Amino acid sequence: MISEKDFHSFLAKERKIIDAKLKKVLANRKPRSLYEPSNYILADQGKRLRPLLVLLSAKAVAGTYKNAYNAALAIEMLHNFTLVHDDIMDNADKRRNKLTVHVKYDVNTAILAGDGLLAVAYEYLLKDLVIPGNDVVKYFTKGLVEVCEGQSLDKEFELKRSVSIDEYIVMITKKTAAMAEMCCAIGAKIGGGSSKEVQALSLYGKNLGIAFQIQDDLLDIVGEEDSFGKKIGGDLIEGKKTFLFLKALEKAKGKEKAALIKVIANKGISPGEVSGYKNIYQELGVLVDAQNEIVKFTRKALRQIVHIKNENDKQLFTFLAHSLIKRTK
Amino acid sequence: MISEKDFHSFLAKERKIIDAKLKKVLANRKPRSLYEPSNYILADQGKRLRPLLVLLSAKAVAGTYKNAYNAALAIEMLHNFTLVHDDIMDNADKRRNKLTVHVKYDVNTAILAGDGLLAVAYEYLLKDLVIPGNDVVKYFTKGLVEVCEGQSLDKEFELKRSVSIDEYIVMITKKTAAMAEMCCAIGAKIGGGSSKEVQALSLYGKNLGIAFQIQDDLLDIVGEEDSFGKKIGGDLIEGKKTFLFLKALEKAKGKEKAALIKVIANKGISPGEVSGYKNIYQELGVLVDAQNEIVKFTRKALRQIVHIKNENDKQLFTFLAHSLIKRTK
Repeated sequence: MISEKDFHSFLAKERKIIDAKLKKVLANRKPRSLYEPSNYILADQGKRLRPLLVLLSAKAVAGTYKNAYNAALAIEMLHNFTLVHDDIMDNADKRRNKLTVHVKYDVNTAILAGDGLLAVAYEYLLKDLVIPGNDVVKYFTKGLVEVCEGQSLDKEFELKRSVSIDEYIVMITKKTAAMAEMCCAIGAKIGGGSSKEVQALSLYGKNLGIAFQIQDDLLDIVGEEDSFGKKIGGDLIEGKKTFLFLKALEKAKGKEKAALIKVIANKGISPGEVSGYKNIYQELGVLVDAQNEIVKFTRKALRQIVHIKNENDKQLFTFLAHSLIKRTK
Repeated sequence: MISEKDFHSFLAKERKIIDAKLKKVLANRKPRSLYEPSNYILADQGKRLRPLLVLLSAKAVAGTYKNAYNAALAIEMLHNFTLVHDDIMDNADKRRNKLTVHVKYDVNTAILAGDGLLAVAYEYLLKDLVIPGNDVVKYFTKGLVEVCEGQSLDKEFELKRSVSIDEYIVMITKKTAAMAEMCCAIGAKIGGGSSKEVQALSLYGKNLGIAFQIQDDLLDIVGEEDSFGKKIGGDLIEGKKTFLFLKALEKAKGKEKAALIKVIANKGISPGEVSGYKNIYQELGVLVDAQNEIVKFTRKALRQIVHIKNENDKQLFTFLAHSLIKRTK
């Protein structure tokens, strides 16, 4: 059996390999006016959760994952394509304490840098692939379609007065979870997994993705101010319709309801008001509701690991789910 | 043997079928906030040259092309993705007398509409495809990569003082010809063509694409003011570094050279100055140079049709090349 420490060593080792490979992808491509801005964001070391999910899924069905690196890089590029374009749409100046691409360069450069990242992503998806790639490309494309639809729904929500929790779950399933689902599906497919295995791992990824996003919403209000410049209560300040906010709106009455409606009307609050709203969330019990929801979707994810043959791999998937629940930023 | 009239009937018939199919692609997809703006540009009936090239190429190797429609639609969507994003970057208000997507809606909507078009393009590329799609996806992705690189070079040229004719040919090969090349490669591949046939048709498409773009540059100054609101001399007014302009700059001396350098320095000219510059072009003989270049690349394209088996199909490819040379808008 492998320990939690082994799991973290595994992640750290693979993260290093992925970072090193990503560094090379765009380094020598021309024209630099296209690839230098793409490389600027790609070189920014994140959690690399998506490529790790690809490798773990390939490993779970095949024991090895050396054939899955290019697809893992492809998915990280796809993810960064969404970040570049979303940052333009969200008018975000910084990401992880660094200027966003459209601020460092300009909007036109960022549009094209995003497009270029997506193009090279598809190139890597099929690079050196020895099996017929139809399913792999279909999973990847389904993820891309959903992430576009999810972003569109998210922008719609900004303009809507009322959004139900169900609509919210649909949105994050497309915007966040579809990509995690795709990582697992592609990893399993490249590993030669059976359709049963592909399906089980896809469901693991999807449910983990939903839990991850609700956790993200929760950490916005209870997390640590982190070294990446993320501020507590940022979602409230921007007036985002998160799980917490929508759940609070559903449960609130009287004065609290009025306070929440004010957030929508004013499209956000001032930083000084965050702690007052945190109190409302606490009184309404929505922090606990969110926690329960995270546990619910994580359990749903973990129910799928019975389909993984190897005990060590089961452990890895379990540790991964637990580490996401326990994260503080 | 088929006549030129048969050729035009064939194009008209297939254009109708493509238009009807394109109308359905995004009609019922949700969310509408994503697909309605994409559909707005896709429904705009253009020449549909790219999908026609796909069908003709499939027909040339297989005799039939019924399996190639989805790929044809995919390429038209890819083409429209580039139009939506390029129009943002070029700050273009109108396309074919209709408001561009980012003007009718807004820039954020247009960025996402473009992304969505590209996503659905990949979906259609593999839809109902019964052969291993690796090569088809690779050709498609190569075209996408090149069109991004070409657009980036084109934007670079705006800022550069000197651009050689060779650099210009590289740019249009990527920005325009790569897509025509890809149409033929994909059509031939889906039709089950041999690698010899795929290569020959690819070269046909590529060279035709280069000829097409130089013809476009030429028509900007000698063409008819068309009903789509295209103005004579638009490229000069915008200070674009076209084949004509670069060739003129290469040949000019003294006063004429100074007049051309002024276009670069001022980033364009006023509409009233167009006829003066047309005279310069005529005196320098660059209109004839462009015509010769168009003929050269068209001949290069036509040299490939010896690899097409069926005489009727040879005729279709010949008529197509001639119709592009003879076009007036």
